[in-house]
Amino acid sequence: MAFTLDVTSMTEPAVPAGVRDDDWPSLAERFRAAHAAVTAVAATGVYGYRELEAQAAERAKIAAFVAETDGQYDDVVVLGIGGSSLGAIALRSALLPTAWNARTAAERDGRPRLHVLDNVDPRTITGVLSIVALPRTIFVVISKSGGTIETLAQYLVVRDRLSREGLDAAQHLAFVTDPVKGALRAIAARDGIPVFDVPPNVGGRFSVLSPVGTLPAALCGIDIDALCTGAAVMRDATMGSDLAHNAAGLFATLQWRAHEQAGQGQHVMMPYSDALRDIAPWFVQLWAESLGKVDADGLHVGPTPIASVGATDQHSQVQLFMEGPADKTVTFLRVDASADDVEIPRLEAGEKALAFLGGHTLGELLDIECRATASALARAGRPSMMMTVGASDAWHLGGLMMWLMQATTLAGALYRVNPLDQPGVELGKRLANKELGHPDYAGEAEAPRAGQVPPTPRRLRVG
Amino acid sequence: MAFTLDVTSMTEPAVPAGVRDDDWPSLAERFRAAHAAVTAVAATGVYGYRELEAQAAERAKIAAFVAETDGQYDDVVVLGIGGSSLGAIALRSALLPTAWNARTAAERDGRPRLHVLDNVDPRTITGVLSIVALPRTIFVVISKSGGTIETLAQYLVVRDRLSREGLDAAQHLAFVTDPVKGALRAIAARDGIPVFDVPPNVGGRFSVLSPVGTLPAALCGIDIDALCTGAAVMRDATMGSDLAHNAAGLFATLQWRAHEQAGQGQHVMMPYSDALRDIAPWFVQLWAESLGKVDADGLHVGPTPIASVGATDQHSQVQLFMEGPADKTVTFLRVDASADDVEIPRLEAGEKALAFLGGHTLGELLDIECRATASALARAGRPSMMMTVGASDAWHLGGLMMWLMQATTLAGALYRVNPLDQPGVELGKRLANKELGHPDYAGEAEAPRAGQVPPTPRRLRVG
Repeated sequence: MAFTLDVTSMTEPAVPAGVRDDDWPSLAERFRAAHAAVTAVAATGVYGYRELEAQAAERAKIAAFVAETDGQYDDVVVLGIGGSSLGAIALRSALLPTAWNARTAAERDGRPRLHVLDNVDPRTITGVLSIVALPRTIFVVISKSGGTIETLAQYLVVRDRLSREGLDAAQHLAFVTDPVKGALRAIAARDGIPVFDVPPNVGGRFSVLSPVGTLPAALCGIDIDALCTGAAVMRDATMGSDLAHNAAGLFATLQWRAHEQAGQGQHVMMPYSDALRDIAPWFVQLWAESLGKVDADGLHVGPTPIASVGATDQHSQVQLFMEGPADKTVTFLRVDASADDVEIPRLEAGEKALAFLGGHTLGELLDIECRATASALARAGRPSMMMTVGASDAWHLGGLMMWLMQATTLAGALYRVNPLDQPGVELGKRLANKELGHPDYAGEAEAPRAGQVPPTPRRLRVG
Repeated sequence: MAFTLDVTSMTEPAVPAGVRDDDWPSLAERFRAAHAAVTAVAATGVYGYRELEAQAAERAKIAAFVAETDGQYDDVVVLGIGGSSLGAIALRSALLPTAWNARTAAERDGRPRLHVLDNVDPRTITGVLSIVALPRTIFVVISKSGGTIETLAQYLVVRDRLSREGLDAAQHLAFVTDPVKGALRAIAARDGIPVFDVPPNVGGRFSVLSPVGTLPAALCGIDIDALCTGAAVMRDATMGSDLAHNAAGLFATLQWRAHEQAGQGQHVMMPYSDALRDIAPWFVQLWAESLGKVDADGLHVGPTPIASVGATDQHSQVQLFMEGPADKTVTFLRVDASADDVEIPRLEAGEKALAFLGGHTLGELLDIECRATASALARAGRPSMMMTVGASDAWHLGGLMMWLMQATTLAGALYRVNPLDQPGVELGKRLANKELGHPDYAGEAEAPRAGQVPPTPRRLRVG
């Protein structure tokens, strides 16, 4: 089995307010209209994330670069934020062994560690720079526009450090950016720094299968061809207009319907798999930034995605999911078979709280907890879906990520928003740029300074 | 400065639907009633998390244990889940240097690494066991009840591994559990395993200042006395019934009011500090599990806490916060001064996208982004609060955690729920135990098995 979506617990009688048998025709119709809208837009060439074949040359270039630099690096440090980091983090968790960066070189078969600097906190960059040996490190600087201030600030710090150690920038930097535009492209041309293209029609949160995700992954030995092959299979399986046969359409339509018709606009993504743990924050960006905006009628719309992890969050968020307001759907994400399962030893036979565990496996326990939680939610009238992937390998991961990207595109049409823009983040960017003295933003009204917060500050101090 | 709470952007005219000047008297009255309810319950002795002095003996015992075992361990592995792991993870992120586990022994000044196994995925436990040397490892098994199936399953795997290597369990295990009851207590007594008490009146999500958090922290060299001193100062500052002078009451009351009167029931916790990054998931458990339940009128109530990280999530969730439905509050959490700030070098003067960054510091950039985001949200009419802590050291971290625990207790009274129970997770537990063959749960109705999901399964397969 490759991928399965079980939506029983989104339907009646499994849960109240679920889809009824006679709702399906109108949902199928609504989906067909959304699909037609996506198809019309697709003809304008904006969905570059699907054009995996067009990026084959860039993947070959990455393979050549990895082969050519083989053995040169102990550490790969990604400088990137948001869509330029969440994909690499998800790939690391899924496709490199546990605690990768805590392993010795021998435990990593000589492959490099992978650090992702996705924030500008000075503590973190100082910490990471203190534990990597610069002569054995490559910094992958990722900014589609070439103008991301957080990433450029980090680049300046790193570039200065390299230069102070007398190291050749072209040997210790690689850029991932727009093929033509932006500051990184210009610097790469000037200094002979290796540079890889983010196609102009691939947006940040849809870019994991472009060099944004595949360059760091390939440098650590991940099979990016398998990743993209799995993605292509899923893409081809999710292009149709028939709701009953399009797993991305079914996911999107049922989430949208739960929101629209049952007030369930909080969409929990809950992997029961440590390998897939960081799919949840990656999905949060995809779903939140693509759908949370002003719709065609000028209304503020969009679901709130929530990241969770099973079984861990049974001891954290599940109380709320069970007994709080009935405003959520939960998507369980499970792996069909665990490659290296561990049997629980038959020990402590005298202790009732332990004896019954012996002979089960940890993988079985995790799976039983997943089904028990789904079942408990359904009994409490709370809807859920079960996504199953056959394995947590590169092929399946590519397929899973494509599944969710396709679902997001279709959900954009259902919510009647443009899933590809993010106008709501511009104001904050402008205010920060103004405050930092960027010449293009001099006219911007000033951001309040600490201590000047307008008007009538109400502050309380302790200590 | 120690701690500040700025609530300007929860009020009018900063944001519409904010608190108006003439709302304050009734809010103060509502808070006074909630405070009285908490005080009445407190007299029954249930708020053990505040009784820091009563736990001094246990802290001394921890100090003695750490001194006695000094130099014996390279790795501390916590086996715990939910309230038994989130606190230790937050302490690790805040109080140990960045990338602690990726550091060599010398880079750690000989102090041990800290691994937290908070899930039962076999991949993770196998991975961690493959990189620690058992003769140099201590496993801290944490379960208040002594009956947490995930933790007990991990314990059985570890115990068997120790025994197969011929290692003495009493040298490589420590338990944290109820002072009298449960399987772990019995095993400790039988085998002479060091054991530390979770006071019966300290619940899991309120237990970070008990040995649940302090034992793993102290083993890695964190100053737990400073942690608890800061917490005690904050406790004493948040005991009063006057809303204008109780920072925990103010936080709780404004969140509750935003939910109750403005429909803003999604409460985002957004640290702008990598050190405080894992305060967010710790707070999510605290707020979700304490408040998401059935209230005194039988209604399903409770806010949905959402973890976020600034500046990172400006490139992920902030689009939704700005332009999605107006159903959220955002709490910014910032550190007043960064101890080791990094200046951004003045390089690339010819590139407009970079030149203006030179001369600023990374800490300044982070702080400017925090204020710019708060300002942009306010301009979009979205409410927020700004919590500031003076530093990210142990004293302040204890204070911050106490602040949020006190706020949670008070919020329980405002929402009219019992913040100390979690009845909603029992059904899932019972179903899992039944499926695993626990003798006490034989009568439970069976959880559905994969492939038997009732009724009318609706499944879609790809591949």
